[in-house]
This record gives sequence, C-alpha cells and structure tokens, in this order.
Amino acid sequence: MPTLLLLNGPNLNLLGTREPGVYGATTLADVEAQALATAQRLGFGLEAFQSNHEGALIDKIHEAGRRHKTGEIAGVVFNPGAFTHTSVALFDAISGVKPLPVIEIHISNVHAREAFRHHSYISPAAAGIVVGFGTDGYTLAIEGLVRKIAATG
Amino acid sequence: MPTLLLLNGPNLNLLGTREPGVYGATTLADVEAQALATAQRLGFGLEAFQSNHEGALIDKIHEAGRRHKTGEIAGVVFNPGAFTHTSVALFDAISGVKPLPVIEIHISNVHAREAFRHHSYISPAAAGIVVGFGTDGYTLAIEGLVRKIAATG
Amino acid sequence: MPTLLLLNGPNLNLLGTREPGVYGATTLADVEAQALATAQRLGFGLEAFQSNHEGALIDKIHEAGRRHKTGEIAGVVFNPGAFTHTSVALFDAISGVKPLPVIEIHISNVHAREAFRHHSYISPAAAGIVVGFGTDGYTLAIEGLVRKIAATG
Amino acid sequence: MPTLLLLNGPNLNLLGTREPGVYGATTLADVEAQALATAQRLGFGLEAFQSNHEGALIDKIHEAGRRHKTGEIAGVVFNPGAFTHTSVALFDAISGVKPLPVIEIHISNVHAREAFRHHSYISPAAAGIVVGFGTDGYTLAIEGLVRKIAATG
Amino acid sequence: MPTLLLLNGPNLNLLGTREPGVYGATTLADVEAQALATAQRLGFGLEAFQSNHEGALIDKIHEAGRRHKTGEIAGVVFNPGAFTHTSVALFDAISGVKPLPVIEIHISNVHAREAFRHHSYISPAAAGIVVGFGTDGYTLAIEGLVRKIAATG
Amino acid sequence: MPTLLLLNGPNLNLLGTREPGVYGATTLADVEAQALATAQRLGFGLEAFQSNHEGALIDKIHEAGRRHKTGEIAGVVFNPGAFTHTSVALFDAISGVKPLPVIEIHISNVHAREAFRHHSYISPAAAGIVVGFGTDGYTLAIEGLVRKIAATG
Amino acid sequence: MPTLLLLNGPNLNLLGTREPGVYGATTLADVEAQALATAQRLGFGLEAFQSNHEGALIDKIHEAGRRHKTGEIAGVVFNPGAFTHTSVALFDAISGVKPLPVIEIHISNVHAREAFRHHSYISPAAAGIVVGFGTDGYTLAIEGLVRKIAATG
Amino acid sequence: MPTLLLLNGPNLNLLGTREPGVYGATTLADVEAQALATAQRLGFGLEAFQSNHEGALIDKIHEAGRRHKTGEIAGVVFNPGAFTHTSVALFDAISGVKPLPVIEIHISNVHAREAFRHHSYISPAAAGIVVGFGTDGYTLAIEGLVRKIAATG
Amino acid sequence: MPTLLLLNGPNLNLLGTREPGVYGATTLADVEAQALATAQRLGFGLEAFQSNHEGALIDKIHEAGRRHKTGEIAGVVFNPGAFTHTSVALFDAISGVKPLPVIEIHISNVHAREAFRHHSYISPAAAGIVVGFGTDGYTLAIEGLVRKIAATG
Amino acid sequence: MPTLLLLNGPNLNLLGTREPGVYGATTLADVEAQALATAQRLGFGLEAFQSNHEGALIDKIHEAGRRHKTGEIAGVVFNPGAFTHTSVALFDAISGVKPLPVIEIHISNVHAREAFRHHSYISPAAAGIVVGFGTDGYTLAIEGLVRKIAATG
Amino acid sequence: MPTLLLLNGPNLNLLGTREPGVYGATTLADVEAQALATAQRLGFGLEAFQSNHEGALIDKIHEAGRRHKTGEIAGVVFNPGAFTHTSVALFDAISGVKPLPVIEIHISNVHAREAFRHHSYISPAAAGIVVGFGTDGYTLAIEGLVRKIAATG
Amino acid sequence: MPTLLLLNGPNLNLLGTREPGVYGATTLADVEAQALATAQRLGFGLEAFQSNHEGALIDKIHEAGRRHKTGEIAGVVFNPGAFTHTSVALFDAISGVKPLPVIEIHISNVHAREAFRHHSYISPAAAGIVVGFGTDGYTLAIEGLVRKIAATG
Repeated sequence: MPTLLLLNGPNLNLLGTREPGVYGATTLADVEAQALATAQRLGFGLEAFQSNHEGALIDKIHEAGRRHKTGEIAGVVFNPGAFTHTSVALFDAISGVKPLPVIEIHISNVHAREAFRHHSYISPAAAGIVVGFGTDGYTLAIEGLVRKIAATG
Repeated sequence: MPTLLLLNGPNLNLLGTREPGVYGATTLADVEAQALATAQRLGFGLEAFQSNHEGALIDKIHEAGRRHKTGEIAGVVFNPGAFTHTSVALFDAISGVKPLPVIEIHISNVHAREAFRHHSYISPAAAGIVVGFGTDGYTLAIEGLVRKIAATG
Repeated sequence: MPTLLLLNGPNLNLLGTREPGVYGATTLADVEAQALATAQRLGFGLEAFQSNHEGALIDKIHEAGRRHKTGEIAGVVFNPGAFTHTSVALFDAISGVKPLPVIEIHISNVHAREAFRHHSYISPAAAGIVVGFGTDGYTLAIEGLVRKIAATG
Repeated sequence: MPTLLLLNGPNLNLLGTREPGVYGATTLADVEAQALATAQRLGFGLEAFQSNHEGALIDKIHEAGRRHKTGEIAGVVFNPGAFTHTSVALFDAISGVKPLPVIEIHISNVHAREAFRHHSYISPAAAGIVVGFGTDGYTLAIEGLVRKIAATG
Repeated sequence: MPTLLLLNGPNLNLLGTREPGVYGATTLADVEAQALATAQRLGFGLEAFQSNHEGALIDKIHEAGRRHKTGEIAGVVFNPGAFTHTSVALFDAISGVKPLPVIEIHISNVHAREAFRHHSYISPAAAGIVVGFGTDGYTLAIEGLVRKIAATG
Repeated sequence: MPTLLLLNGPNLNLLGTREPGVYGATTLADVEAQALATAQRLGFGLEAFQSNHEGALIDKIHEAGRRHKTGEIAGVVFNPGAFTHTSVALFDAISGVKPLPVIEIHISNVHAREAFRHHSYISPAAAGIVVGFGTDGYTLAIEGLVRKIAATG
Repeated sequence: MPTLLLLNGPNLNLLGTREPGVYGATTLADVEAQALATAQRLGFGLEAFQSNHEGALIDKIHEAGRRHKTGEIAGVVFNPGAFTHTSVALFDAISGVKPLPVIEIHISNVHAREAFRHHSYISPAAAGIVVGFGTDGYTLAIEGLVRKIAATG
Repeated sequence: MPTLLLLNGPNLNLLGTREPGVYGATTLADVEAQALATAQRLGFGLEAFQSNHEGALIDKIHEAGRRHKTGEIAGVVFNPGAFTHTSVALFDAISGVKPLPVIEIHISNVHAREAFRHHSYISPAAAGIVVGFGTDGYTLAIEGLVRKIAATG
Repeated sequence: MPTLLLLNGPNLNLLGTREPGVYGATTLADVEAQALATAQRLGFGLEAFQSNHEGALIDKIHEAGRRHKTGEIAGVVFNPGAFTHTSVALFDAISGVKPLPVIEIHISNVHAREAFRHHSYISPAAAGIVVGFGTDGYTLAIEGLVRKIAATG
Repeated sequence: MPTLLLLNGPNLNLLGTREPGVYGATTLADVEAQALATAQRLGFGLEAFQSNHEGALIDKIHEAGRRHKTGEIAGVVFNPGAFTHTSVALFDAISGVKPLPVIEIHISNVHAREAFRHHSYISPAAAGIVVGFGTDGYTLAIEGLVRKIAATG
Repeated sequence: MPTLLLLNGPNLNLLGTREPGVYGATTLADVEAQALATAQRLGFGLEAFQSNHEGALIDKIHEAGRRHKTGEIAGVVFNPGAFTHTSVALFDAISGVKPLPVIEIHISNVHAREAFRHHSYISPAAAGIVVGFGTDGYTLAIEGLVRKIAATG
Repeated sequence: MPTLLLLNGPNLNLLGTREPGVYGATTLADVEAQALATAQRLGFGLEAFQSNHEGALIDKIHEAGRRHKTGEIAGVVFNPGAFTHTSVALFDAISGVKPLPVIEIHISNVHAREAFRHHSYISPAAAGIVVGFGTDGYTLAIEGLVRKIAATG
C-alpha cells in the first residue's frame, strides 16, 4: 500500500499541550491520528515525523525521495513551522527530490501575523499550499495530495 | 438550504477557452458545475458569479454579507485573480462583512510566479487559503469552508 | 444656488449598518443628511454619490469638472476609502478638473492603522485634508471647502 | 477588412477639452479620427473605445481576443492611462489573449514625470511601446502595429 | 472657563513677516488672535505658545497634560512644523498625556511637498488632523477639537 | 539638406552576426542602410555612428549639438544599449545640447528582461521613446523624429 | 567619593504619575532614590538629571566628560527615551567624552514595540545596554557600570 | 530548590580558548562556574547547556518549559549567539513556553558590529536583554532574572 | 561694517580639548579667532555662536535673517554638526531667511565616515558647501561666502 | 602527513544520484575520491565529511580548528550549500578558528540563479572563493588552498 | 616649480557655450585661465585637462600619481561631472595614487538637484570637497589644496 | 596553437608599483609572465591586454569572440576591476560572444570590502569565478578555464 509522509517542523510538538483554552486541545498526536484515518480512508498508509532539527527534516525528505523512486512513498504533507521563513536548505531538499509532491501547510493564517511570516522559502517548490484552516488543514492537504497523485499517476 | 457563493475575479472567464493544450480544457463553466456538485454533496446550495470589475465584486461581497445575516449565504469561496495583489478595497469589503467566512483560492502556485504575485492584500482577511492545486483547489476550498461553517455553527 | 458634491468611495455604504456597538450607528444616509444641512446653512446645495466602482467615481469627478465650468458645482468633499492608497487614476481625475477644489476626508485616523494606509495618492491633488474626526469630519470638510470657495471666488 | 482596436483608458476623455493653451486643442475625437485615417491608409479598419472603468477595458480586451481568433481584429493600440501603473489585471488580460498584438502608448514622457509613473505593469506584455511623441504617437503606434502584423502574418 | 492651548512649532514665528506677496500677510499674531476669537465664540479660552525648541514644546505638552487633569485645559491644537517629521519625543509626549486631545494641523499641503514631509511621527497620536487649508485650518482645527471635547465630555 | 544622426551604443555592432537563427540576420549595416532610405524618403540625409565607448558617444552628441545650431543636424535617433541603465553622463550630454531632439530606441522589450534593464537614465531627456518593435523601431523612431522636427520647425 | 550620573531623557519625568494601574506607581523620584541607594551600597555617590531638551542632555554629558577627567564622575547611566532613535548629536556627545563609560537603559522592551524603536543611534557608543527589566533595569545598569569601572580602574 | 537554566548557543564553546590576549582568558567553563555561584548566592540552582545545533537549543527550551510548569525551572538566561539574527524557530520556542522568563544576553556590543547583527529575532520574546558587559553580563542577567521571578512569583 | 555670523552646532565646543594627539590642538576659540581675522582681512566683522541646542541655532538663524534685512549681517558660515543629518527644522530655518546666504561646512570628510553621515538635510538650502579641509575649511568658507556676497551685492 | 578537510553541506549528498542526464553522473563519492587524489598528488591527506545539519558542520569546523593548532589539519575546502545564504553561525565558526584557511566553493554559478543565492554570509570569512566550475571546482579549490598554505607556511 | 593638475570630466567642455543668459558666459577656457592665475599667485604651475572618456581621466590620474612621486605634480582639483555618481573606477584610481591629494569640486549644488546626484563615489577618497560656489569654487578648491599641500609638506 | 586571452581592467596597471610593503611586489608584468608560463605548460598560448577604458575592453571581447569562431582564441580570463560593479555593457559583451568561455577573477576578497563591491554585473555571464587567492588566482583561473575548454572541446 502506498504511503504518505506527514512531516512537522519546529515547535509543532507543543501543539495542544499549552493554553488549551486559547489554542485548542488538539495535540500533535491527535493530528497524526486524524491524518492516518484520512489517509486510510483514501487508500493510503501514513507515516508521521516531527523534529525541531532542520537537518533531520532534510534527511527525512531525502529518505522520502529515495522511497518515492521505489513506489513506497507517494507524497508528503509538510508543515515547516518557522523554517518556512528561513530555510533555503529545505527548499533545496524539496526541489532535489522532485517529482515527489510536497504539500505545504500552515495551521494559522501566517499572512495575518508578523511581517517576517509573510514570505515562504518553501512555497515556490510546493505542489500545493493550504493555510489557515486550523488542524483541519491537514485533512484538506491530504485530500489535495491524493488528487495530485491520482492526476499524475 | 444554506448557500455558498463562488466568486471569480478578473480574467477567470478565460479559463479553458484558450490554449487547452497548455492550460487544460477545464472552463469556468466546468469549475462552477463541479463546485455546485461538491456543495450539494455536502448539503449546500451554490451560486456563482464572475466579473472583471472590482466594484462589481465589492458589491457582491456586500450582498453576501447582508444575506449572511439572514442565514441565506453561509460562506464564500473567492479567487480574486489579479486583484489579489492590488485591491485594498476588496480587503476592506471582506473585513466589512465579518464574520462571513471567505476562503481565498488560487489555481496556480502564485509564489512560483512573478514577484508582484507573492503579496496578497486579501490573505490577512481570509478565513483560509488554498493555492496551487489547479481547479481541484475549488473542491478543497469548499470542503474547508464547510468545515469552518460547521465548527462555528 | 451653487452646489457641493459629496463623494464617498468603496465600502462606505456599509457605514453604521454593522456592529453599531463598535462603529457607531451613524449611517451613510445620516452622513449625507447632515452634510446637506451643513451646506444649506452655509448657503449651498449638496448632491451625494457613493460607489464601489473606481470608474464610476472618475466619471462623477469629470461630470463635476464640467459642471464647475458652468458654475453649477462649487466644490467636492471626497472620501476615497481604500482607493486612497491604490488609485493613480483618481489622482489624475482630480488633477484633470482643476481648479475645482476637492477636499479629501477620512473618518478614522488612517495613520494609526496598517502601514499601507499611510500613503495617499489623492493627497497631493487635494485642496485640503481632514482626517480622524469621525463623521464630524464631513462637517469640517464642508466648512473648509466653503472658506476655500469664498477665498478664491 | 481586418480591423484595429484603439483603446484609451482613464481620463483620456478629457483630452483637449481643458486648458487648450497648455495641453493643445487635440481632443479624443480628433485622435480617433486621425487614427482611423492612418489605419485606412494602411488598409485596415479601426474601432475606438474609451473607458474610465478598468473592468470595461478588460472586457474589451477579451472581446478583441475572441475576435482575433476569427480574423476580425488584427491588433490593438492601447493607452492605459493611470492603470499603467496599478493594474495587474490588465496585464493578465493582455497576456490572456496572446498572440493578439497590443501596442502600449503614452502621449507624454512618463519617465520625466512623477516616480510612480516610471513603472508599467503593462509593458512586459506589450508587443511594442511608444512614449512621448504627443498625439503623433498614436500614428507611430498604428504604423508599428501594422508592421508587426505583416511580419507575423 | 475651560481653555484651549494653541501650540506652534519651529519657524512658525516667521509667518507673514517675510515675502508677504508670496506667503500672505497673516502673521503668527494674527493667527493667534483669530484662534482666540474662534475659541471664545465656542465658549472656550485660549492660550498660545510658540517655540523653536523641541524640549520647550514637550514641556508645554506635559504642562497641558497636568492642567487637563484639573479641567483647566480642554484640548490642544498643535502645528509641529518640521518636528512633525523627526520627533519621536513629541509623539511620546502626546501619547503620555492621553486622554488630552491634540489636533495636528499643517498650513500647507505637506503631501504635495518634499518626500521627507510625507511622514508624520505625530499623526498616529493625534485626535484629528487638518492639512492644507492655509491659516483657515486653525479655525477648522479648533471647531473639530471642540466637537471632540463635546463628544467625550 | 538637413541631416539626421543615427547613434548606436555598445554591442550593437554585434547585431545580426551571431546566431542568426535566433536573433535574425539583420546586421547593423542593414539597419543603417534602412535608416538612410527612410530618412531620404522623408527629405533628410542620415549619418550613422556606432561605438562601444561612452566618451565617444558623448563627443558625438556634443558635435551634433554644435551642428544643430548651424542647421546641419536636425535630430538624433539613439540606441544607447547597456549605457541606458548606467550613464548619467549621456543624460547630461543630451540635456546639454537641448533643444536638439533625441529619440531613444530599444530593439527588444527591455521591460520584459532583467530588472536592471527597466530603468533608463536617458528617458527623462528623450524627446520620444520607441521600444520593442525589433529593428523596425528605427523606422518608427525616424518618422517620429521627423514629425517632432516639423512640429517645432 | 566617586560619583555616578543618572541621566533621563524626554518624557521620563512622567514616570508613575499617569495611569498607575497600567504603568505602575514608580515615579522618577523613586527611580532616582533607588539608584542613589544602589550606588551608595556599591561605594559611589549619585547625581540625577532629567530633561526633555536634547541640548541640555548634551551639555550634561559634556560636563560629565570634564568631571571624569578630574575623577569626579566615574560613569553614566542614561535612558535617552525617544532621543534613542533620532539623535546623532547624543551619539556624538557620548563618543566625544570617551573613555567615560555610558550605560544605555530602556525600561520597556523596545524591540517588542513600534519598528522605529528598534534602532538606536546611542547603542554603538554605549559601554553596555540593559533593556526590558522595568525600573529594576536601573539597578542592573548601575551594578554593570560599577563592574566596568572596576575592570578598567 | 528552584533552578535556572543557562543556555549558550553556537560558537560560545570557543570562549577563552583562542587568542586569550584579545578575547580574554574566560572560558565557557568559567562562565558557567561563575553563573552557578551567582545563582546559589541568590538561592537558586543552575544547569548549563551549550550547543551549536539550533534544534538541540529548541528541544532544551521546550524541556525548560515543561519543567517550569512543575516549578523545577524558574527561568532561563540565553545567549543565542549567531542564531539571534536568523532563527525564527527559537523565537517561536521561547514564545511557546511563556510565561517562562527568558533573558537574552550578548557578551559584546552587537550594535557596534556588522549591520546584520543589529537585528534580533529573539528580543521581542525576551523578558529582558543585557548587551555588551562582557562575561559580567551573565551575572547581571541572572540578577535581573531573579528580580523578574520575585516580582511575578 | 557688514558682519558675518559664524555658527557652530552640537559638540563643536569639544574641539581641541580632547585627544589633541588625534584631533589636533585647535580649539573652538582658535577657530573663531582665525575666522575673525579672515573676515576682517576681507573687510567684514564676525560674530561667533555655538550651541548644542537645535532651538537656539534656529533662533540665531532667525535673528540673522532679521538683521540681514537691515544690512547688519551679510552672510552665515554654519557647521551644523550632527544636526546636519537629522534636522528638518534647521533646513526650514535657513530656507525661511532667504536670501541670506548660508555656507555649510564640515571639518572632516563626512562621506568617509558612517553611512548616516552621508545625507544632509541642510545641503539643499546651502549657498555653498565645504567639506574635509579640517579647520582650514572655515577660512575657505568665509572666502567663498564673501565672493557670493560680492557677486549678488 | 598534513591533511585537508573536505566539507560538504546540505543536499550535496544528492549529487549525481538524480537525473544524471541533467546534472551529470558525478556522485559525492566521486567528488571525494577525486579530491583525495588531488590532495595526495600535492602531498596532503584528505578527510571528507558531509552533513545536512548546520550544527554538525559547526562542530566539524571547530574540530578542524583544534586540529589545526596541532598541525594535523592544514586547511578546509567547504561547499556550504544553502547554508551559504542563511547561516551567520557558520560565518562565526570559520571566523572563530582563524587562521585556519577555509576555501568556499560552489559547483554551479550561484550568481546566475535566484536572487537569494547572490549573497553569501560565508564569503567575508573565506580565504578564497571558487564558483561555477562544476565539480572541477573542488580540484581548483584544493590547488588554491595548497598555494595559500605554502605562502603562509 | 611644483604644478597642480586641473581635471574636468564629462560635459564640462560645454561650459559657457550654451544659453549664456542662463548658465553664465564663463567658458571652460575661462575657468582654466582663472585657475592658472590663482595657482601662479600661490606659487604653483597648473596643467588643465578635460575629457568625456572615463578611461582617459583614469589614465591622467595615474600619470599624476607617477609625477607626484617625482615632485612634479603637487595635487589635483577634479570636477568629475556625471562620473561622480557612477564611477567606482575613478574612486579606485584616486585611492590608488594616494597620498596625492585630490580635491572634488562641483559648480552647482548637486544636493539641490535630482536624487541620483546626491551620492558621490568619489567623495570618500577626496582630500576635500567644494560644492555650489559656481566657477568661483575652482579658486576655493585650489586655495584649499595649497593649504593641504603646505600642511603635509 | 590555441591561445588564451588575459584581460585586465581599470587600475590593474598599478599592481605592484605602489606600496610594495603593503600590496606585494608582484607587478602586472609579473602576472602576465606567470600566466603565459601557466598557459604554455597546459599547451596554450596567451595574449595579455590591460585598459582603463570600458570601451576598449568591450572591443577586445568582441575581437576575442570573432577569433573564437576561427579557433584562434580558446577562452578568456578577465579581471574587470571596478567595472565589475558598474558595467552592464561588459555583461552584454560577454553574453554576446557566447559560447566563448570567460572566467571572472578578483585578486582580493571583494566580499570582505565595501558593500558596493559585493555585486557583480559580470558574474551571471561568467563561465567560472575565482576570488581572493591573490595573484595566484590567475593561475587557478587559467587551469579552470583549460578544464572547461577540454570538457566542451
């Protein structure tokens, strides 16, 4: 069964564990469980990985690239967190594993926040972008990714 | 039955009618039919409107705001086209009809195009943003909008 | 009797009809009625026009320019709304009907809002500018306009 | 007989009707008559259209694109006026009707005026550009357009 | 009787004393007399102060803040002259005496002059702004200030 | 017989001699011959000069200025090549020989190329500008120049 | 006994006297008393000076420089207030009295406020900088200054 | 006993081991020992951690945030080294563990060095900032942190 | 006997009194004595004034403007020190006393120092500028001023 | 035998393994083997290290600095990949191990790619820079490094 | 007898020969004659050179550098004309012949003209700068240069 | 025998002739002799040319382009000196003689010097770039060029 990779970047491990009254009680574990359910409903497996280390994320994208060639990994949903705005290396990593499709997702509306969050190094290499739907965005991103995979299959 | 508004801005009437070998054969009529089907599948009606006139789009958003108060219009999916990058007035219009949720959608990946397409006046007022999924993005946007409506209902 | 033109740009038709607890209950109709009273007190008639269409506002300014030559229109009070920040064409229209005096007015203090509201294309062509007095600003603008007319009459 | 479209944008309807001592007495009607004569001398018909509405100009360019496919319209001469500097939508419209050739013309030398007139959104999509020849520039633009048409015919 | 403070900044003492053929013959003394008359007509006293010293203007605003608490000073009309564009300290002073209302006034249309006059540090803290009405602007500013005072009284 | 000067700047001597399949086979000699024919058709002589040396082009413009006073040179058509974007000295030279009319021409559409080609130091001093008509632009430039000469004659 | 100079710039005389519920009840007199106590605990005297006049602050720094040469003044703790962001002259004054050590202090976290407060002309000349500790920062600044004095003594 | 965390970022492990004649002989071990002594004098324990890995620093801040909730860690003194100027992820990490107080410290005066060192992503999230006191700054930072803890305890 | 005014701005009172090995031993008193001698040699008197207060310098320029009308003051030599780069008010003051000629002088080569010293608000209003000749520059400035006076006398 | 360190940054492990028809079939292993051969030909050993982790590269540079003091490592050839454009920490690391010579190398011509690749944080600290020679650049870099070592040996 | 070099850059050969009613009748020959007289009065010879070729000016500065070593040329007065704003090569040339003193002179007040004339590449390398004294500035520049030569002799 | 062209731009003729204690004693003649030896060792001839005239360098590149077509010139090593930062025309010249390979070389590390030296107009057209190896860089550049020639031969 082809598998999707759910990749979460820095600080996303904090999801839901602080100030639930403000940010909601959805934890990263909840997000990953929900994503797995969505993927399975659409006929895919799902692996999840989170790291605060830019290098670990690059390594994981490379691994996904290698496993894409063998048909093991069909696509990636990636929330790069703050690396969105600072990491040329992640842009290069995603570009370097083309044609593996990578969907960029942000939980909040980054364009309604600080100016330095308005620019994304990742976006030009993304196959699609989903912003501001809260954690529901992961579901949309997976659905969009599966449509991309079907269209190019 | 609550209704969604599908709003398309300047030049989107050209969709599918030119260079189908390059841009695909999906026309605006196809997009609107597909959007209607998606909305109906999710229990909503759908009205569609396209204009090359900024003022007409503002008028339509105002109308949607008024009909939102009466429960007639539940939300908007809006592709502002080139007005994305130049229209403060559309930003004000969307802000002025809050809490009517408006999803911003772009067919292509605007961040992989000219620099002047990287900034959106609309995004800070958008309830959610979907970019780069081709015309499938309209389906994702409607699904995301419906989730927003359900969450705040 | 010489007449003043009260011109309101995009989204000003929403005045007073939403969130009256926040923005006050003064509607555009109230503003126009109050402006008429002020004008009549000072010996002038007043016509009012609002549009969300940049082109319609340009057309109206041209019309005012033509009627200024015949002595029918003595001056204009203009709240350009969001077009303040984006419309070179309105700047050209006002410049093109000189010496018809046009007063620029903003209800809120635009300089205390988003950075993109700090620049006005209209101001260099304005005969005078009134900012931040709420809807009372229309009264001040009319009084100032009448003084301008008297001084140049 | 193939026809050319002469398109004039905002405020150009004011040509010649104000301060003739300063701006000359050539009116828009004169410009259109002269352009018709030039076109006919070169074996073309000419239709003329002026609007202060960005949307109307976009609609007209779309119409020209459709009529270009049937051989009815051979090319466009377009003075975008102030929309030159602010309208991405007109750039998209012209790009969207390629290969219909559109010549950009400005009566005055925009590069010797305010800084905000030095940048044109239209130019990258233009088949040719004529600047600063006064109303004679329309004649040059038509001649250049006809040469373009002949070269690609 | 509640009193208004008329504050004039650097170089405004030169008003009317040089090149009367060009700048008019209205002196600062005339402005202050006219302002007193306007204030009295509206039921207020008026004190006037001019200085070329930024520190002296700050001191005066502080004094006004203290006297506002005792009901002695009801509001301020302030022409900051060139300090408009360079003084963060005056911005802080005005912010520091809130809720004392301070109206910013400029005699000429600063937006039609050098680029460095287009930005005001004062404006974000101003209760209202009047620009470009010549010395008549002081009258409008006082009238607007009195309306502000009445509305918040 | 009054004479026109055709001035070509750096690298234009390479015209037509490289990659004719791409850039066309029109050489600088062809351009100059065609320009001579156009000038003669309109009743003028034509001298042609090309240099890769900024100083030599300045000297030539000065010479044209001197010969303009004697009626020998009636106007200049100038393709400044890359000096367009870097030479204040050529701007000063053209300004210094006013009222000799100088038409600026570019073969390609410089506004559709690298960003550093979008700014021209020459344009503010140019009597007219022709861009993007290929080598046909020289013909248009000469025709426009002759109209300028006739209008001011 | 060697003495420290505590220098406070514009608007710091307002400390604690307005909105104590918001800004705290610590007045400038409290700050100065606490600073004196800290200095004495560390074996130093302390003089305090506050002014809203840039020139008076420059004069005071010059005086401190002269008295540093005689061993009378050992160092300065300086809160330049809004002059931080605008005064090259204070930067020059501090540079001009080197090696007198001057510690820059800000009560609030200026980097979390308006963008124009993020740049300091004073910092490059400061011997040390303390930001955002509230009025406790004065104590830290004195302690740090005394360590500097001891290290260079 | 409540504990403080001393966090040092990239290249700070090099402290004191190179060019002692220039940079002084204080090593990172010395800094940590001195910090421990200061903390103990004020009634706190101290843990020290240094890493050249941005991810490891983020992980450590998260750990501190978790242990802050249990009362184990009372606050952090953090020298982010070069990550100061490039890491949005560290800003997010610090923001994500609020209200854990984090003091930012720099040994040298970063504002007197290269321009790219003048901006800090960390500062807006810092509870206090100490700059330019050499390694004595760590002592000041701990003292300031303890005062913060006492004030909010 | 007509008199020249020698005006020195902030920190110039420190001239020669610090680090004479570096900056030379010439004091402000020396500069003023030398300037008096130069003025007298050329048939003029000379008054000298130095202040660290921007307002005092403005007042002095106004006074010079008044005394210029009576023929008492023939011209000004002004070293604005750091106010060069920050004071729009001094620019306005000099502009406001036209046609009194004011020569701007800087002892050091400000263009070889920090970037913020490269821009002068004063220069556009200066009758002439002398930079980088050390204190000899005052002599050159007086000679140049006298030539200006003679030429316009 | 003295040894050189060959350091490769993020994504360079992908070399040669993807799209060999486009990027060539040279893998990182080939590059390292070729570099070893070059080094040995010139009388040096060579160690190779690649990582996608910024922190691991900093650690390695520190290690090289320590081993340089013992004469074990003579110099470094470093391709920082995307960290070139974002890592102040690597700049600090290289600066911190001076006088160990570090040669910066880029395989492609970064100046002919995206604008964000035109700036290098590394270059000011580099002993030499080699750009755009493909993988042959490593050979040139080693040869240049050996010349540097010989010159300073 | 030591000699001074008077160097004039592009377009200065036009001095006085055009529009004498506007620019004055002083020609370059007059300037050179007057400069010779001034130099001789001060005990120096003078050679004059003008060119519109940047390369020729660089060559001349190099020649002056060589002749300075032999004591033949004592210093240079240089009006770089438009090359002031564009020529890094002239800056390098002047830097390369240090310690030969070069005085930069501009006839008009360049700071009161177009923005692109406000920056000088030459100034940081100039021994002194004289701006805005008309052609009298050459006399001042020679006098200042001679004082420089005397001071360093 | 195929020949290489060694091209040196402005001020490089000064190499080694001034301040040999600072810049070394290597003259341009030495560089050219060393380059000849390197070329001959690799089986190539070498011609050398230096000029301070941008036009002469363009002419030489054109000549090399013509002789490249006949197999006479195999490639170019070019140190553009200060023209690196200002000459679009040299960029066009190099682009215009493609596929002739041109290696850009700088003796010093331009990225560690003034900001205006960080940008190169030449680099995007260069076949390879060598920076900061002193005059040894010419040897590396020739070796790199020969490898390029061999690879494309």
